[in-house]
Amino acid sequence: MKYSIEKIAELLQGKIRGKIDDVIIESLARIEDAKNGDITFLANPKYENHIYTTGASAVIIDSNYTITSEVKPVLIEVADAYNAFKTLTSLFSKRKKLTCGISDKSTIDMGSDIGDATCIGDYSYIGLHAKIGKNVQIYPHVYIGHNVQIGDNTIIYPGVKIYDDCTIGHDCKIHAGVIIGSDGFGFAPQSNNEYSKIEQIGNVVIEDWVEIGANTTIDRATIGSTIIRRGAKLDNLIQVAHNVEIGENTVIAAQTGISGSAKIGKNCMVGGQVGIVGHITIADGVKIAAQSGIQSSITKARSIYQGSPAFEISEYRRAYVCFKKLPEYFNLFYKIKDNK
Amino acid sequence: MKYSIEKIAELLQGKIRGKIDDVIIESLARIEDAKNGDITFLANPKYENHIYTTGASAVIIDSNYTITSEVKPVLIEVADAYNAFKTLTSLFSKRKKLTCGISDKSTIDMGSDIGDATCIGDYSYIGLHAKIGKNVQIYPHVYIGHNVQIGDNTIIYPGVKIYDDCTIGHDCKIHAGVIIGSDGFGFAPQSNNEYSKIEQIGNVVIEDWVEIGANTTIDRATIGSTIIRRGAKLDNLIQVAHNVEIGENTVIAAQTGISGSAKIGKNCMVGGQVGIVGHITIADGVKIAAQSGIQSSITKARSIYQGSPAFEISEYRRAYVCFKKLPEYFNLFYKIKDNK
Amino acid sequence: MKYSIEKIAELLQGKIRGKIDDVIIESLARIEDAKNGDITFLANPKYENHIYTTGASAVIIDSNYTITSEVKPVLIEVADAYNAFKTLTSLFSKRKKLTCGISDKSTIDMGSDIGDATCIGDYSYIGLHAKIGKNVQIYPHVYIGHNVQIGDNTIIYPGVKIYDDCTIGHDCKIHAGVIIGSDGFGFAPQSNNEYSKIEQIGNVVIEDWVEIGANTTIDRATIGSTIIRRGAKLDNLIQVAHNVEIGENTVIAAQTGISGSAKIGKNCMVGGQVGIVGHITIADGVKIAAQSGIQSSITKARSIYQGSPAFEISEYRRAYVCFKKLPEYFNLFYKIKDNK
Repeated sequence: MKYSIEKIAELLQGKIRGKIDDVIIESLARIEDAKNGDITFLANPKYENHIYTTGASAVIIDSNYTITSEVKPVLIEVADAYNAFKTLTSLFSKRKKLTCGISDKSTIDMGSDIGDATCIGDYSYIGLHAKIGKNVQIYPHVYIGHNVQIGDNTIIYPGVKIYDDCTIGHDCKIHAGVIIGSDGFGFAPQSNNEYSKIEQIGNVVIEDWVEIGANTTIDRATIGSTIIRRGAKLDNLIQVAHNVEIGENTVIAAQTGISGSAKIGKNCMVGGQVGIVGHITIADGVKIAAQSGIQSSITKARSIYQGSPAFEISEYRRAYVCFKKLPEYFNLFYKIKDNK
Repeated sequence: MKYSIEKIAELLQGKIRGKIDDVIIESLARIEDAKNGDITFLANPKYENHIYTTGASAVIIDSNYTITSEVKPVLIEVADAYNAFKTLTSLFSKRKKLTCGISDKSTIDMGSDIGDATCIGDYSYIGLHAKIGKNVQIYPHVYIGHNVQIGDNTIIYPGVKIYDDCTIGHDCKIHAGVIIGSDGFGFAPQSNNEYSKIEQIGNVVIEDWVEIGANTTIDRATIGSTIIRRGAKLDNLIQVAHNVEIGENTVIAAQTGISGSAKIGKNCMVGGQVGIVGHITIADGVKIAAQSGIQSSITKARSIYQGSPAFEISEYRRAYVCFKKLPEYFNLFYKIKDNK
Repeated sequence: MKYSIEKIAELLQGKIRGKIDDVIIESLARIEDAKNGDITFLANPKYENHIYTTGASAVIIDSNYTITSEVKPVLIEVADAYNAFKTLTSLFSKRKKLTCGISDKSTIDMGSDIGDATCIGDYSYIGLHAKIGKNVQIYPHVYIGHNVQIGDNTIIYPGVKIYDDCTIGHDCKIHAGVIIGSDGFGFAPQSNNEYSKIEQIGNVVIEDWVEIGANTTIDRATIGSTIIRRGAKLDNLIQVAHNVEIGENTVIAAQTGISGSAKIGKNCMVGGQVGIVGHITIADGVKIAAQSGIQSSITKARSIYQGSPAFEISEYRRAYVCFKKLPEYFNLFYKIKDNK
């Protein structure tokens, strides 16, 4: 796809600055990599130096951003360069929808119900009485258990496995290798040191507009449901244990683990490699720094935590500054003590 | 399935308290979610307030548990409410066994030996000379390499991949996405900074009654075997490196990583996101708190560790309390020092 | 396969010490497990005691290693016992190459190009216009998206999923369950607390001689490429976010996570469960201890870091020694203070 500068400026409701000659835009690139025919953007002043050297044909920039010297590319001034860039990623996306229909190399078991315009790729298996909405894209090697429900427009990437009785909303994206509805980790200790399995008879409920990253695992509830609320976004390799609830529009970075029956509020931001113990509650809008360990409930909305075990972030940072100085400080202390 | 209160009380060897009228129990629910027709349980006093408001038709309760006010549901008094609840989860489990036989959409390679009543799902592959026991359930998309052995009654969930020469005992449960027998991470550094691969010619041996959670990875030994002993339970997304040995009835929570040739004793409890370095030994019955890093052998049985690097948990907690107070403490110290 | 001691000594350019009688070597074992017919090696003095008790028929040993007592096995003295052992692992490896050709139970989509001697296992899917080199081994259940390129001699183990437009070099090994090219975690916050997805239109480029461990996930770039340079080795369950670059011959242990646009130098060694924040740069030859959290760029080549947040390792260790002594130290301080 090729676009003139004027066409792109019109699309972004932007104002052109500089000579446009016959500039034709063919693709989108990072400012440090861009070459002739590329359009890029500048939103973060940290990258400003690149605007003087970039090979890009055009740069999108905030209208209130002041460039200190001459630049070679055409500039397109917009209200919000980052959002304009986002619009262009959609424009230049080559991602193809599946168009295979229902592959005759897939298995559709008895009693299932599959909506219009839904595609099912090769070697996928759809279980008994599964109910799949309209315009759903199911890639190859997907396993969908019995009685599973999937809403309209949802995309299930290759190799996703969904156990029996789980429910996924509409407009979700479930990335490759995700496991939904595996057994929660529940065992009753016996007097001979063995463990006896507690059957996990609940399910997983994923609401609408949820995105789940590659190889993340979400266990079914012991009884009731493990729930991921509308609009939540989970990154790769996250562990969600049985009976966890994750609130609306909460985002969780990669490799975080959430233990059984923990309840995370809405609009939270959880960093990567965080651990959250079971049976606690995290208030709405809480932020948790990467690698933190949350050992008890956080009741104050919008608070920010760090550490393992975690406490309020500014206190943590002050304590950590002291920690780094401990050797020097111990020296001083013993010198004073011994000189006394 | 529907049951009368009397039937359930009989099954649990419990005593009914309260009027039973025509109460029919149709399902099992958590005390906070339960509604008419549900049975639930109360074992943890933390949840006692729910017993006064629950919509459940019946509640299982320890016979020595004293309820302070009137309650609406019928009570069933038992010796151990939690174990009674466990019995009911089995009763109400809808989990269906695979009943497909050996799918004609699967591949059974030459020389394999498959026991009676074993089911193999669509698109699964069974390698050369594999030996599969009786009553084994192999879901779709499973890969079983050459010379693999699997014992009776074991369940292999969708998408599990088992490399050549590995052995799995009887009555195991291997959840979706688990990888067994991938190469250990072994490379010999060369003088030009490149690494040369060390062939991993060992295997993985998983004994009986082991359960392994979704997307966990267990590497084959360099030589010899990586071993998971009888009754061990591993949660999701755990990394088990080459030549590791995990003892009998040891339980390990999600996202823990165990480095090469580490040997974990029996009856240990390892928290989530723990890291254990290679070539060390952990004594029997040791407990390790979540997110801890174990850098050297733990020789004392039943000791409890925390921290990264970890040390004895009560010492760790005392030190951490001090850590949190460091800023306040530094202030005090400098005040005293400067006033002197 | 059976070999005489003389044959093995010749192969390793080693010198035989002890009587060889009719010793025939049939397999390779660890010194603590070895029995008659096995050959083993001793490189680490920590294991020396085993040489006096091992059942091995032969032991490879460094020529400058001094054994203090008589031993039963034949010794083969070599310049470097560990490298000699490495040679033998190749000799005794039973790992079979795939020999199936292109399975008629696989799907080869239109316009793809597949080199000579390449094998494609059952139920694998090769996308439109994919370009697969010569002598490539693609196991069952592999998904290869549209326009993917794979170089000669590369092995793709079962269940690997590679999204559209990604590129993999020659002589790579990609272990089971690896996901390459899933969407980067990019969302623009909206005023109503919802997140709007940023299309991820870049790809992943994996250069030659790279090995990637089981269930590791590598996200595609937002724009441009996520890059794994020549000779890098990644262990299991690692997260590599969008636009990350990992340098030549860098090795990364299991469960490490690298956030978006971080750039890791060449010849680095990154421990397990490390977290690296986004948009930072790690110099060449840097080493990072397990479980560390890297929050800012490391500019000094070959430096060694530990802690979360991490700093120079010897400083970290000194501080941590003080941390462990804090309770005792606080006691002393308050005693002095109160006695004053």
